[in-house]
Amino acid sequence: MRNCIVAQSGGPTSVINASAIGIFEKNEELKYYDKVFAGLNGIEGILKENIINLCELDKESVHGLKYTPSSGLGSCRYKLKSYEQSKEEYIKLFEILEKNQIKTFFYIGGNDSMDTVHKLSNYAKEHSIDIKFIGVPKTIDNDLPIMDHTPGFGSAAKFIATIALENSLDASVYETKNIFIMEAMGRDTGWLAASSCIATLNGEPAVDLIYLPEIPFDTNKFLKDVENKLKEKNRLVIVVSEGIRTAEGVFLGEMQSNAGYDKFGHAQLGGVCVYLKNLITENGICKKVRAVELSTLQRCAMHFASQTDIDEAYESGAFALEYSIEGESGNMIGIRRIQNNPYKSEPFAVHTSKVANTIKYFPKEWINAEGNNVTKEAYDYTLPLIMGEPKIKYENGLPKYVFLNERKK
Amino acid sequence: MRNCIVAQSGGPTSVINASAIGIFEKNEELKYYDKVFAGLNGIEGILKENIINLCELDKESVHGLKYTPSSGLGSCRYKLKSYEQSKEEYIKLFEILEKNQIKTFFYIGGNDSMDTVHKLSNYAKEHSIDIKFIGVPKTIDNDLPIMDHTPGFGSAAKFIATIALENSLDASVYETKNIFIMEAMGRDTGWLAASSCIATLNGEPAVDLIYLPEIPFDTNKFLKDVENKLKEKNRLVIVVSEGIRTAEGVFLGEMQSNAGYDKFGHAQLGGVCVYLKNLITENGICKKVRAVELSTLQRCAMHFASQTDIDEAYESGAFALEYSIEGESGNMIGIRRIQNNPYKSEPFAVHTSKVANTIKYFPKEWINAEGNNVTKEAYDYTLPLIMGEPKIKYENGLPKYVFLNERKK
Repeated sequence: MRNCIVAQSGGPTSVINASAIGIFEKNEELKYYDKVFAGLNGIEGILKENIINLCELDKESVHGLKYTPSSGLGSCRYKLKSYEQSKEEYIKLFEILEKNQIKTFFYIGGNDSMDTVHKLSNYAKEHSIDIKFIGVPKTIDNDLPIMDHTPGFGSAAKFIATIALENSLDASVYETKNIFIMEAMGRDTGWLAASSCIATLNGEPAVDLIYLPEIPFDTNKFLKDVENKLKEKNRLVIVVSEGIRTAEGVFLGEMQSNAGYDKFGHAQLGGVCVYLKNLITENGICKKVRAVELSTLQRCAMHFASQTDIDEAYESGAFALEYSIEGESGNMIGIRRIQNNPYKSEPFAVHTSKVANTIKYFPKEWINAEGNNVTKEAYDYTLPLIMGEPKIKYENGLPKYVFLNERKK
Repeated sequence: MRNCIVAQSGGPTSVINASAIGIFEKNEELKYYDKVFAGLNGIEGILKENIINLCELDKESVHGLKYTPSSGLGSCRYKLKSYEQSKEEYIKLFEILEKNQIKTFFYIGGNDSMDTVHKLSNYAKEHSIDIKFIGVPKTIDNDLPIMDHTPGFGSAAKFIATIALENSLDASVYETKNIFIMEAMGRDTGWLAASSCIATLNGEPAVDLIYLPEIPFDTNKFLKDVENKLKEKNRLVIVVSEGIRTAEGVFLGEMQSNAGYDKFGHAQLGGVCVYLKNLITENGICKKVRAVELSTLQRCAMHFASQTDIDEAYESGAFALEYSIEGESGNMIGIRRIQNNPYKSEPFAVHTSKVANTIKYFPKEWINAEGNNVTKEAYDYTLPLIMGEPKIKYENGLPKYVFLNERKK
């Protein structure tokens, strides 16, 4: 008996399930593993033996997951400590894996999850245990190094650009001066906010000002930017990253009352848009300002996901399955851009040690001299990643999504 | 020379342009009016002679408006006073209309705009002026009486239900208890929030609790509802109307800091979801609560509008044009539901005096006994209105929307 297991970790995306189904369906084709297990709620669930056999589930449900957003296998934010710090956990985990005759563990996640893959792979090698650990990338933040981009980013980018576009029209209806401020996720990096540059109306950018964490935020400069733009036109659309901060490193989101920290000690950001709205109104620059935090909407909007992103997420999973047969444990899959026009990409393997705990920032060269927008390079980089409308199924006028009954509680 | 003019007023919707194009294209077919003018920024713009001839514009742009959200002709929030109060304005307006040989004025809007149609029509009759005033309905709030529903509602409902559905999946990924609260528009009525009942996952409702302005809000009852539901399941999705208020009539949105009043003296609502989030966390019922105000997103999400809604908005416009030939001034178009399965509707004419300044509330019989959700009747009512995916054009991975160059500034 030769089995494998797949699990998902970290914040969900629209296409994280496509990667899981890529793994599952590639095995249906190759028949390399006897069973494809799923660990529910990541490593945390596996430690509780919360494991199901995907091959035994209703086929339609499993296939429906490909076009269902959010971690269909559940997720966790569980940072595995070093072996020295939590010996018992390692022993228990490997007992469970060996009991289920698991030869390969696929973990779909971001930086933190790749750190887990790295640690477990090292442990297995040091203890001569014949189990491979393979990482599959996932994050809307697009902040993993080495690879061109991450599955999940394109769909979030497409939603952000679409909402920016539609709301620039909404903001245009009255003659009174007004501002629409939209806050995107992305933690310490500006990839998501920058992606709003894709939105154009009659060939002109729909977004007027973009502020990213890669450039220190200067309140006076910001107010001046807004004031100047409002002289040119009646309506402004401003897009900001949740992670923008001052030169002293103070997050604007922390200046709002609702801030906190998550389990990994990452600051829980948000509320930046409201802070900026108040700055504008309190300084008498514009009375009518709407502030919208896109929140979780941007990471689960499968109804308008990028088909390119869905396809690449699926391919990353399928490639991971194939790679696991001869490939080396401790590696993860990345995506390489071969050419831009027509767009072509391919998956490749890279060691998790090169990716884990490292952040890929938005390139400073792609930010304009004023530090309040992005350049043509950002547009050209992002455009191919958002292409294609999702081939989702509909039921009663809404997308037909799947929730695995095994997860009910 | 026999011309007509069309203008838009009040808050935009995804399909308000479809009504304008319905008027324009029906005239292209019937050739009844020589010119179809558009008044930019509603009655306010017409008073400034901000008028363009739609027949002279680029045909592709005009047709592209049908699938472009938000008031493509601009809008205003201008409440026309009585003749006694603003004689000069009436005289000036009619001078402009007569100068342009306008025989029919089509005004697309909600309650306030229908009041304008009513006043102008009366003035024309009293002064034996041969100009007809015809209203075309528009409001996402769905609060116009007499008619079954209003163009704009179905598309907003579809977006709200989709976002509720996707975020119920997003909220399900972790094992920790968590709550997603979403705030819909709708002013004093609960139609929009109630429409989230359409969202289902594996046949079960995706939304757990729905609070509407039609039922007085009781803080203790609310906290009890949430506490009880959290005993049954780990994740909750709650949808609330911006207009919910206590038995004493205090808007919850006013308890937040950002409240204000618009020009008509309507309270500017919002921030209800943050208020409820704080209620839940401060009372120790759940630590992890996300609050999202859908804000303007729900009224311009053409990328996932209801094709049924687009078609009905277009038909309302086309019918208004036809009706104007023999019909009576001071009337407006409504939509009558003929049957539900298969769904069939038809436009009809009704006098604006029956509609203006009157609000159609969400039926209390469609609210459950606990006052925290809606019944099967609400589901059956809403479902046909959200059906069909929009036939929009795409360009560079995003919907191809049109912004009239004539409105640039």
